[in-house]
Amino acid sequence: METVLTDLQKLYQEGSEEALRDFFTFLKFNSISSEESYSAEVHSCATWLASYIEAMGFSVEIWPTSGHPVIFASYCGAGEDKPTLLIYNHYDVQPVDPLDLWQTPPFSPTIRSDQVYARGAQDNKGQCFYVLQALKLLLRRDGKLPINIKLCIEGEEECGSKGLAEILAKHKRALQADTLAIVDVGLQKADQPAVTIGLRGLVTMDVSVKGTKGDLHSGMHGGLAYNPIRALTELLSGLYHPDGRVAVNGFYDAVLMPSEKEKESLALEFDEESYLTTYGALPTGGEKSLKPLERAWLRPTLEINGIAGGYSGTGFKTVIPAEASAKISCRLVPHQDPMQIGDLVKQHLIKNCPPGIKVEVNIHKGCGTAVRTNIDSRSVKAFAQSYSEVFGKSCTFILEGASIPIATELAKTSESELVLVGLGLGTDNIHAPNEHFGLDRLEKGALIIARAIELLNT
Amino acid sequence: METVLTDLQKLYQEGSEEALRDFFTFLKFNSISSEESYSAEVHSCATWLASYIEAMGFSVEIWPTSGHPVIFASYCGAGEDKPTLLIYNHYDVQPVDPLDLWQTPPFSPTIRSDQVYARGAQDNKGQCFYVLQALKLLLRRDGKLPINIKLCIEGEEECGSKGLAEILAKHKRALQADTLAIVDVGLQKADQPAVTIGLRGLVTMDVSVKGTKGDLHSGMHGGLAYNPIRALTELLSGLYHPDGRVAVNGFYDAVLMPSEKEKESLALEFDEESYLTTYGALPTGGEKSLKPLERAWLRPTLEINGIAGGYSGTGFKTVIPAEASAKISCRLVPHQDPMQIGDLVKQHLIKNCPPGIKVEVNIHKGCGTAVRTNIDSRSVKAFAQSYSEVFGKSCTFILEGASIPIATELAKTSESELVLVGLGLGTDNIHAPNEHFGLDRLEKGALIIARAIELLNT
Repeated sequence: METVLTDLQKLYQEGSEEALRDFFTFLKFNSISSEESYSAEVHSCATWLASYIEAMGFSVEIWPTSGHPVIFASYCGAGEDKPTLLIYNHYDVQPVDPLDLWQTPPFSPTIRSDQVYARGAQDNKGQCFYVLQALKLLLRRDGKLPINIKLCIEGEEECGSKGLAEILAKHKRALQADTLAIVDVGLQKADQPAVTIGLRGLVTMDVSVKGTKGDLHSGMHGGLAYNPIRALTELLSGLYHPDGRVAVNGFYDAVLMPSEKEKESLALEFDEESYLTTYGALPTGGEKSLKPLERAWLRPTLEINGIAGGYSGTGFKTVIPAEASAKISCRLVPHQDPMQIGDLVKQHLIKNCPPGIKVEVNIHKGCGTAVRTNIDSRSVKAFAQSYSEVFGKSCTFILEGASIPIATELAKTSESELVLVGLGLGTDNIHAPNEHFGLDRLEKGALIIARAIELLNT
Repeated sequence: METVLTDLQKLYQEGSEEALRDFFTFLKFNSISSEESYSAEVHSCATWLASYIEAMGFSVEIWPTSGHPVIFASYCGAGEDKPTLLIYNHYDVQPVDPLDLWQTPPFSPTIRSDQVYARGAQDNKGQCFYVLQALKLLLRRDGKLPINIKLCIEGEEECGSKGLAEILAKHKRALQADTLAIVDVGLQKADQPAVTIGLRGLVTMDVSVKGTKGDLHSGMHGGLAYNPIRALTELLSGLYHPDGRVAVNGFYDAVLMPSEKEKESLALEFDEESYLTTYGALPTGGEKSLKPLERAWLRPTLEINGIAGGYSGTGFKTVIPAEASAKISCRLVPHQDPMQIGDLVKQHLIKNCPPGIKVEVNIHKGCGTAVRTNIDSRSVKAFAQSYSEVFGKSCTFILEGASIPIATELAKTSESELVLVGLGLGTDNIHAPNEHFGLDRLEKGALIIARAIELLNT
């Protein structure tokens, strides 16, 4: 075993200079999917990536969608009797605001202290890139791959995966696989190998609260008009019980908590002091009676992601605004239904709306259910072993509080066992300024994927 | 009496075409005091106005301040044995955003249905202009004024009157008067003459609520971090009791309610249906146990004038922001102290701040106490009689929920009896798009001021 890894590692290091050059090229594309103005850059990125994978010996198709294209690549040289692994990544990235907080420009990749700084360095270009390096390693060593490999790399993960979701059925045959590895998650600690066995679901909504026809002077109307900002703060704070539980009637009804045995398999210990050091505040959110990772992994949550109303610039404006608004999201666990939970929140807000105020709630479509993978499946076991080998340490199982709405659909369409893997860390600043990914994790990632491919061939 | 009024009215109408031309010139200056970039326009406006008043036969001084200049004009031709009336107005105006909601550009005055539409048409260029027309009427008719008149027209009312406040002491001698008329208020109904006998005080503050060092992903941290937006909605909604009373400890302690006799002199009846028609919502704000105008005139209020946090643009961002903020103002009644009330609110917020969250409150300086004029004073009586004569209807007394922070200081410095008058209406859209003022009120205003000047000469 050790020899296999040492050889792969040696091969990786021989090619690392060239790989880094290619990685930087990949990172330089401004492939921000949510902003229309970057559309051409997203397409250029897709074209470059398709050529890169084609040059590796894969058969590549660019699937057009209603939005940005999906790159589909396949290597079927292992033969029909060999298993097929479908790997999911995305080449689009988050917006870069606030730009002035970046130490170096987001699309000028820079190495500082062995970390690559760039938008997408981790999420998900970095994790996509080590997958490709893993394949290159095996191809360079053996001239072929031991199992059949399919790659599905989309360009709209950061804006809802709408295009891919729409074309899944059409490409059902092409996507057939035995294992689906979604390489877009991470670890709890840099030195502790872990396979993710679940994701939370998600439902999002806009809330708008309206009072009078137009803005009012707060001197003349203070005491007369019901201030929509006051109404909004009352409605939103009323979504929580003082003990942190969500106060929406029926919110927890469908929640399926894991069995004690399942709980035991999870690495639920949590270092609150280290959270304080890293993030600057203690983890005081969520349900007070539960442990931090129970709250973040096993329980649904409701968060207010944005709020706006009245005048918020410099100086002061004594206005009672005509309306105020907020954005709410709920993270869901098995077996909660996103649209049903959205509706419960909506009904709660409508029921508690004060007189003189109207509330409107717009629940967004396309949100996803929670995901659990089968911890006893062949696929999860192969990846867990690979993590253990590469880290030289027994692999644990974790959950991920975030959501990848396409995961369930893609697993269903491809009729495969789902595995959730990755090497992200909470400190990578994904979706934030100064996103970065370690050179050590680029290497580990390549080795883990390469070894898992070998282990799936048994 | 009737003849006097008829003559003045005739004189007004003879000069009305020329007056309207001059009024439009006044309105065309972009004298927005709160925006640095309009500084030159504010000064041009002051220069034009000074020349206009000088041409009327007044001695005019332009008093420089740390901000925009104050125009001081005086006519002392009536002699030392005659009373002196000091009239306060302001030539600066509010910003014009949102510009796209204006039917005609804010600085291109337009007449529609006998209303002049422009920023400042009422607040306060319109009310300043009819004061000047009143003086012109009397001068044209008699060649002189019956009493001594001083005008104090500032350029920073809409941004806090800082400059004027700073130079009051220096100009104490020049400002000496028997009566101070602040012509910057209005009526409750267009056909009901009313003199305002009080204003509420004001204290404003910024509230900032901070959680972690940076923004967090709401999937990964939902259930861990305490969301600052949630904390802010809890803190702000906690400022009210369910019955609408402000929940801040000690908030009402100093409140001096008027006696039953004082209450009787006030026009407290209120048409809730007409409020609904005009503003689009019933007056459901404030303390539930009180009548609308008791709430708006006699009681202090607390309003949230702005709130912001997280992502509020189009689409969605699943962020737990590092901070959220709000702007709060309190309208005050006699004998509440602005800084003390500000501090009570601050202490309430700090006391209720949840663990993991820091709250900062910045109370703004330069806020004002509530004002009450003496209903039995010679000055108030003269203006009340003038209103009655011009409207042909008995004058009532009202209060104004808004604040004019300079009022108290100016009355004190000038050692004069304070009178609060004006012809504004709640429907004039001051501080909002499509501000307007009626041609009929321009005329009524000129007649009321002219008659009051005559009545003060007794």
